[in-house]
Amino acid sequence: MADKKMVESITSMDEDFAQWYTDIVKRAELMDYSSVKGCMIFLPAGYALWENIQDRLDKRFKATGVENVYMPLFIPESLLQREKDHVEGFAPEVAWVTEGGGEKLEERMCVRPTSETLFCDLYKNIIHSYRDLPKVFNQWCSVVRWEKTTRPFLRSREFLWQEGHTMHETPEEAEERTVQMLNVYADLLKEDLAIPTIKGRKTEKEKFAGATATYTIEAMMHDGKALQSGTSHNFGDGFAKAFGIEYTGRDNKLHNPFQTSWGLSTRTIGALIMVHGDNDGLVLPPRIAPTQVVIVPIQQRKEGVLDVCRKVAEESLEGIRVKVDDTDRSPGFKFAEQEMRGFPLRIEIGPRDIENGECVVVRRDTHEKKTIRMDEVKTYIPELLDTIQSDMYERAKEHLESSIYDATEYDEFKKLIDEKPGFVRAMWCGEQECEDVIKADTTATSRCMPFENNEPISDKCVCCGKPAKHLVIWGKAY
Amino acid sequence: MADKKMVESITSMDEDFAQWYTDIVKRAELMDYSSVKGCMIFLPAGYALWENIQDRLDKRFKATGVENVYMPLFIPESLLQREKDHVEGFAPEVAWVTEGGGEKLEERMCVRPTSETLFCDLYKNIIHSYRDLPKVFNQWCSVVRWEKTTRPFLRSREFLWQEGHTMHETPEEAEERTVQMLNVYADLLKEDLAIPTIKGRKTEKEKFAGATATYTIEAMMHDGKALQSGTSHNFGDGFAKAFGIEYTGRDNKLHNPFQTSWGLSTRTIGALIMVHGDNDGLVLPPRIAPTQVVIVPIQQRKEGVLDVCRKVAEESLEGIRVKVDDTDRSPGFKFAEQEMRGFPLRIEIGPRDIENGECVVVRRDTHEKKTIRMDEVKTYIPELLDTIQSDMYERAKEHLESSIYDATEYDEFKKLIDEKPGFVRAMWCGEQECEDVIKADTTATSRCMPFENNEPISDKCVCCGKPAKHLVIWGKAY
Repeated sequence: MADKKMVESITSMDEDFAQWYTDIVKRAELMDYSSVKGCMIFLPAGYALWENIQDRLDKRFKATGVENVYMPLFIPESLLQREKDHVEGFAPEVAWVTEGGGEKLEERMCVRPTSETLFCDLYKNIIHSYRDLPKVFNQWCSVVRWEKTTRPFLRSREFLWQEGHTMHETPEEAEERTVQMLNVYADLLKEDLAIPTIKGRKTEKEKFAGATATYTIEAMMHDGKALQSGTSHNFGDGFAKAFGIEYTGRDNKLHNPFQTSWGLSTRTIGALIMVHGDNDGLVLPPRIAPTQVVIVPIQQRKEGVLDVCRKVAEESLEGIRVKVDDTDRSPGFKFAEQEMRGFPLRIEIGPRDIENGECVVVRRDTHEKKTIRMDEVKTYIPELLDTIQSDMYERAKEHLESSIYDATEYDEFKKLIDEKPGFVRAMWCGEQECEDVIKADTTATSRCMPFENNEPISDKCVCCGKPAKHLVIWGKAY
Repeated sequence: MADKKMVESITSMDEDFAQWYTDIVKRAELMDYSSVKGCMIFLPAGYALWENIQDRLDKRFKATGVENVYMPLFIPESLLQREKDHVEGFAPEVAWVTEGGGEKLEERMCVRPTSETLFCDLYKNIIHSYRDLPKVFNQWCSVVRWEKTTRPFLRSREFLWQEGHTMHETPEEAEERTVQMLNVYADLLKEDLAIPTIKGRKTEKEKFAGATATYTIEAMMHDGKALQSGTSHNFGDGFAKAFGIEYTGRDNKLHNPFQTSWGLSTRTIGALIMVHGDNDGLVLPPRIAPTQVVIVPIQQRKEGVLDVCRKVAEESLEGIRVKVDDTDRSPGFKFAEQEMRGFPLRIEIGPRDIENGECVVVRRDTHEKKTIRMDEVKTYIPELLDTIQSDMYERAKEHLESSIYDATEYDEFKKLIDEKPGFVRAMWCGEQECEDVIKADTTATSRCMPFENNEPISDKCVCCGKPAKHLVIWGKAY
């Protein structure tokens, strides 16, 4: 019974979704709390997920011409203040360094909450001619935002992310890059994380401080709430003007370049947990799982058992991230651990299996168990991993699509938001006042004005009844 | 003549080595200065070097069982103060965050200068039994030390590094890990960066704040100065005791575990420049070069030239990091750029070469030029890259070995340090006083007590004449 310990301590997600989430995060050893208030520790199992996400995303970036750089951690106050909307958005939530090397600083510096200002400061120095454009830089780093309430992966005072910052000759090219990077994010989530998303544009109220347009991918968690999973911003030439970035154009005149930025963070690990996890623990899509297959020896002290397990790992599973669990814990414990940690497949091999030339394969996502012949392992396992990857995506897609409701009347809207976990599609007049009213009444926010499936479902704003301008996806959000 | 601009502006290294270094760093676009005093910007060419170093080192780490994690950026003052020697070493050079989210913090926090204290804080929570040992964690991050004078890559207020922090059951195991990681660093420098190093132990004066022993790899720059290129520390159980980290041993009693830490930083990029660079610019060893081969089309507007260049890149140079420079600048400019940026090889292909079924190959390290047949490219280029890699190492080794001098008398010692660029081997009594005298007289410091070639060359301390305890490598250092 002690073997079950790893599972027993998880709260059921139907009972208390928030506690279920925290339980998984702790029990699967993804993170730990630190002595630094509001900051978290990424443990090996959690950080390995981020490494895989980085690897997959960075390859996509480089294929589109992105170059990685690294900018300073600190932003002098005067630099942060250069663009008015931006400083208003971020100043209240930054951390300030006021002393260094035993002395009070002449000018205080914040720890970067995001680095538009630093990139502009650099671009001012290195962009002189249209020949210097475009500049498509990105950095992988941590940023700090002084959040009051925090949750592992979803909201913490320091988090890991990438931030891309680009400069272009024309507004069209900037717009194209903004959309391109949103599509890169959506593709990463779909293909590697098996998470479907809704792409769309943020309202003025929800857009990034200083941007002219913010695009977003919104994912739906198992409890029906939204998680904004990546954003891409078009800045127009606002920052460029504020920072005096000018280049000599093809017409031999001075122009301001057009700017974008885009970011995806360790929040996506929260999405992985809340889209795919179940009451036994984490469920990881094979492409992103640090361990794809765990081989559990049965009666491992019997001669030959461990040898066969290792032989299968080395000879039949080349190119697959596999480990043989030869620790001295019981098979039952190892099964429970596979489930808690979300390894997509486990292979059980015992003396009888070896006699019969067989092994037992167990899927994490469906708990399905199948006995296969040893000589099938080489072809069956890679195929099964692909099947799991696509099944997980299809299930998540089915969940997303079946949890979106239409509302044309406000009472209906409120009832849906209140009673049905999921998103509600409803028309909006375009005024922030209605967003504020809806948020006050229901806690739901406008997630986005979707790029697809956005035909009007009524001609009136669901809230005020005035003429509608946009179809909006509404939902409660993390 | 304008084509030569990229080269013309470099100071000769014999004239002014420091200026030569700064010129390369700027002209090869490795870094840029930022508006943040003492902090630098890693531009794409500089950051790509760090990415390659990370990739090569991280693979070596993982092969020895290292697991990556990420710890908070901030250290509360009370945590930093827990170990006495450590806080004395670091407190004077940290940056303090005193305000966050619009409020003064109850306890100020420093931006990590190194993370021993944070790792101890974590290990206290997760190490309970000998079964939890060893813990072999590492993180890739930036750290901040408030340096008064800074130089690109060598010394800046923020720099990038990895820091490994491990805990072990026995002092022997900790010592073994300390040496193992030093060897990993030496191997990275030798095999990938083509830089020979001297491995040894630091004196008490030069060791890390809080360590019982610090091991180092010391490289020699072209001007004969030393660059400490990686360090590995054994902490004994000092921190574990200060932090109350205890585990139940195999004897069922409580014990403190034994600790190590080890780090390698972006300083190694400085070493790459100063070991291999020449008066034409950067020279990069092929294994670490982001671009290994640049193909320069001659008369590229002539029909077929660019096609052949691209065909060679795609079909004959698979697995090699190659780029075709099809920009509209002149071949002369492209040649100069290859030299400044240190691409190991360039291939020139023009209409006459195509007619003759040939191309011209030019080595960056020796400027050697050779015409080869097109059908040789596939085998010749990979072999030549290997040859360049080993030639570069051999030249650096020859330089190191021929620039080490022995001294048994203090006058001789001072004369050597003063007149001969390089290191001096001399005996030492073991007293810090002599290190202080030597530093005051010559600006040289004890680099290490070498692991190899350390037979006594006299029985007296070169400085005070008292009985000698150790052979020491002395030198001026960055």
